[in-house]
Amino acid sequence: MLPRTYENQVCSVARALEVLGDRWTLLVLRDAFSRVRRFEDFQRSLGVARNVLTDRLSRLVDEGILKRVPYQERPVRFEYRLTEKGRELWPVMMPLMQWGDRHYTEPGGPPVVVRHRDCGGEVTGHLSCSKCGAELGPFDVEATAGPGAVH
Amino acid sequence: MLPRTYENQVCSVARALEVLGDRWTLLVLRDAFSRVRRFEDFQRSLGVARNVLTDRLSRLVDEGILKRVPYQERPVRFEYRLTEKGRELWPVMMPLMQWGDRHYTEPGGPPVVVRHRDCGGEVTGHLSCSKCGAELGPFDVEATAGPGAVH
Repeated sequence: MLPRTYENQVCSVARALEVLGDRWTLLVLRDAFSRVRRFEDFQRSLGVARNVLTDRLSRLVDEGILKRVPYQERPVRFEYRLTEKGRELWPVMMPLMQWGDRHYTEPGGPPVVVRHRDCGGEVTGHLSCSKCGAELGPFDVEATAGPGAVH
Repeated sequence: MLPRTYENQVCSVARALEVLGDRWTLLVLRDAFSRVRRFEDFQRSLGVARNVLTDRLSRLVDEGILKRVPYQERPVRFEYRLTEKGRELWPVMMPLMQWGDRHYTEPGGPPVVVRHRDCGGEVTGHLSCSKCGAELGPFDVEATAGPGAVH
């Protein structure tokens, strides 16, 4: 169980949610973990209003979860990459996807399956490999189309 | 990395966030994992407007994440308990707390420390015990005041 605190100010969940507790923010992060990096790609993937996307990206940069990296000189253009602090959210996002798969998937099955890159095992509820038992992180896995994928 | 989908409709993260993607909803869940069960207790803990709390609790019941259980007969009064589906969110909430602890804790340290009930080990990033290695779930741990707790 998680701790109960009457002082919300010192609850780490409350603090984390002040930063993350917005659906668009979490969807931006989902895309960032899928290697989406450029404004136009986030925009196309999410179908979100540009001003909302600008706001969410700025906040994630301010919080040190994403960083802006120039990818073009004239004019200067930036892309958004996960920082180490951002990558540390993988253990939150992956179980969220697993929970969604379990409870909100169409009859066809999950739209995507995330597998251990080395051996093809699936990611367990403890973020280890179902086949070889290795502990997994965001760089150890790859996503493949699952039975419920839309083609 | 998480999968990239242009069809948001079939993304399990997007679906999960349609249900959970609201700060109050996640804070209600945090409290539920800390064994808060009654409306008045949620209200006191969160300091949220009663109509907002009523709305969030109803939605969580509609989604089968919480269930209403009568605890008194005349008049009938209900409390809210996590269902199995709700308890399966522990692997999302626990890493969220760990991330918050790591990045948003006061100099004093984390306000609470969650420990394996059997041996006192801490919960690792893979939701196992740092001491005995057991894989942990919501019923295997207990929260104790940490160095940053407010007294």
